[in-house]
Amino acid sequence: MEKMKLKLLYADLQSDIRVIEKELETALDSSSHYLKDASLHLLKAGGKRIRPVFVLLGAKFGQYNIDDMKNVAVPLELIHMASLVHDDVIDDAELRRGRPTVKSQWNNRVAMYAGDFIFARALEYMTNIQNEKAHQILSKTMVEIVQGEIIQIEDKMHLNQSIRDYFRRIKRKTALLISSSCQLGAVAAGADDSVAHHLKKFGYYVGMSFQIIDDVLDLTATDKQLGKPAGSDLLQGNITLPVLLAKNDSAIRPYIEKALSGDMKEDERQVFLKKMRSSNAINEAYHISNLYLQKALKEIEELPANSVKKSLKDIALYMGKRKF
Amino acid sequence: MEKMKLKLLYADLQSDIRVIEKELETALDSSSHYLKDASLHLLKAGGKRIRPVFVLLGAKFGQYNIDDMKNVAVPLELIHMASLVHDDVIDDAELRRGRPTVKSQWNNRVAMYAGDFIFARALEYMTNIQNEKAHQILSKTMVEIVQGEIIQIEDKMHLNQSIRDYFRRIKRKTALLISSSCQLGAVAAGADDSVAHHLKKFGYYVGMSFQIIDDVLDLTATDKQLGKPAGSDLLQGNITLPVLLAKNDSAIRPYIEKALSGDMKEDERQVFLKKMRSSNAINEAYHISNLYLQKALKEIEELPANSVKKSLKDIALYMGKRKF
Repeated sequence: MEKMKLKLLYADLQSDIRVIEKELETALDSSSHYLKDASLHLLKAGGKRIRPVFVLLGAKFGQYNIDDMKNVAVPLELIHMASLVHDDVIDDAELRRGRPTVKSQWNNRVAMYAGDFIFARALEYMTNIQNEKAHQILSKTMVEIVQGEIIQIEDKMHLNQSIRDYFRRIKRKTALLISSSCQLGAVAAGADDSVAHHLKKFGYYVGMSFQIIDDVLDLTATDKQLGKPAGSDLLQGNITLPVLLAKNDSAIRPYIEKALSGDMKEDERQVFLKKMRSSNAINEAYHISNLYLQKALKEIEELPANSVKKSLKDIALYMGKRKF
Repeated sequence: MEKMKLKLLYADLQSDIRVIEKELETALDSSSHYLKDASLHLLKAGGKRIRPVFVLLGAKFGQYNIDDMKNVAVPLELIHMASLVHDDVIDDAELRRGRPTVKSQWNNRVAMYAGDFIFARALEYMTNIQNEKAHQILSKTMVEIVQGEIIQIEDKMHLNQSIRDYFRRIKRKTALLISSSCQLGAVAAGADDSVAHHLKKFGYYVGMSFQIIDDVLDLTATDKQLGKPAGSDLLQGNITLPVLLAKNDSAIRPYIEKALSGDMKEDERQVFLKKMRSSNAINEAYHISNLYLQKALKEIEELPANSVKKSLKDIALYMGKRKF
């Protein structure tokens, strides 16, 4: 359902998205059944392919050519997928998008190498990119994402952290790759530097807004909508914005500590979710997300006239406003 | 002691090796103390830097330039290091080169991301390589290595495998990267295709010979020499050539099964090692290693006259003959 709506937003890109989808499938082919199954499992689970879409939209500001663009879009999506596989190992996650994770269906070791494999394929794909600047942006992004993954481990379980720590984390975890996707489309298509610059900032703000919403939904959506238990973030030790905003509320604090201690019972989880949902923290988090969204929309205004500006805006609004 | 002797073999390259050593240290710098400590821990543990040395020697057949060559040598060594970190997670290894592994000093999660980080840095470094063919060889190598890592998991614990399975495994695990190192030096320095081809084959044969010796030494060297308990390979479920050659020996078979079952006692390990050492399997394995070594030496003969041919030969003999 959700995916359907999003697809309508980029209807013009349908055939090019299909090209990328096909390439992703080819890229994940392997002589090892283990690797192939684990990777395709992830591919079939879907995902919104937001990063490739942003590459294509960014490229519309330059010399658009799907054959060049897929060389950028495919590795970006692969890097995203690889980081999901490795994150699931770290988080001990059993479910993603309503399906068992690679690590739960196979095991941590297969998940580790499946992630490595997908990274390596991304790298192989990148060798097709002729544009040196695009190369550098992509590899730098990859280094920063991995560094971000370590920060995420370092920050886990620590309730004594600032909102600034949270922003730093989601920047690397989410905003960076979306930002690079928007930028890279423009760079690889030879658009003006200033266009690439505004797209980069646009992607950053959209990514921040999006991740905050994602973290809110982890608390406000139903288990069924999420495809995993609501509150999973906290139960896995990941401290998100709504929790940071609620942690000094004496009615909620004990539940947060309980969740982090690792032995929260099912009825306690229900009470915790109920209290969170009726607290101010959710509204505050939405508000902050919306501030980022507004900044993203402002960046669009800075871009030269182009029919895709409306698509960028629609997708940003979609990502920053979604109720689930 | 061992490292000293090897250093003498490439005395002429000393200052260039130091350049690479310095670059490795820079490449592993990170704002995350976790990552920096874990990576430098691995770097300081040493290693023979065989891959960079082969890059430099191969490059001597073309336009040798350390500034170009380091762009190839550094990522090759980084890829090697990253795969070591991830392998230690798979093998549950506590010690490497006499020091605690990243996964035992920190934990599996840090080890996983430290490996990712080192891979990402390798990738970042590769963007400096201008030569497209070198890019393709390097990325293809990386994909094959990772696929090899999965094969290693698939083959683990299975005594019912052929020597061919073993060869396939060590090819990907070891021979491929050494082979690519030799080839890449020549390619990046613009040497003739036939030179690159023979160097590639040379590296493959040396790598096979080397890994077989390594697997023999795991059984014949002392715990102290190895920096970990002798027989570790089998105890971790990795079936090596000597074990495959000895597995039908009724005096040894029960010990092999015991080791794989995971509850071998210390005195049983001692008996197992004694029996292995006095079996024919060790000599047979040495013999097979030597066949590869001879093939490697033959490839050197095919190369055009060059003063480094003697160095290639010396290093090959060193790697294929070492007693420890």
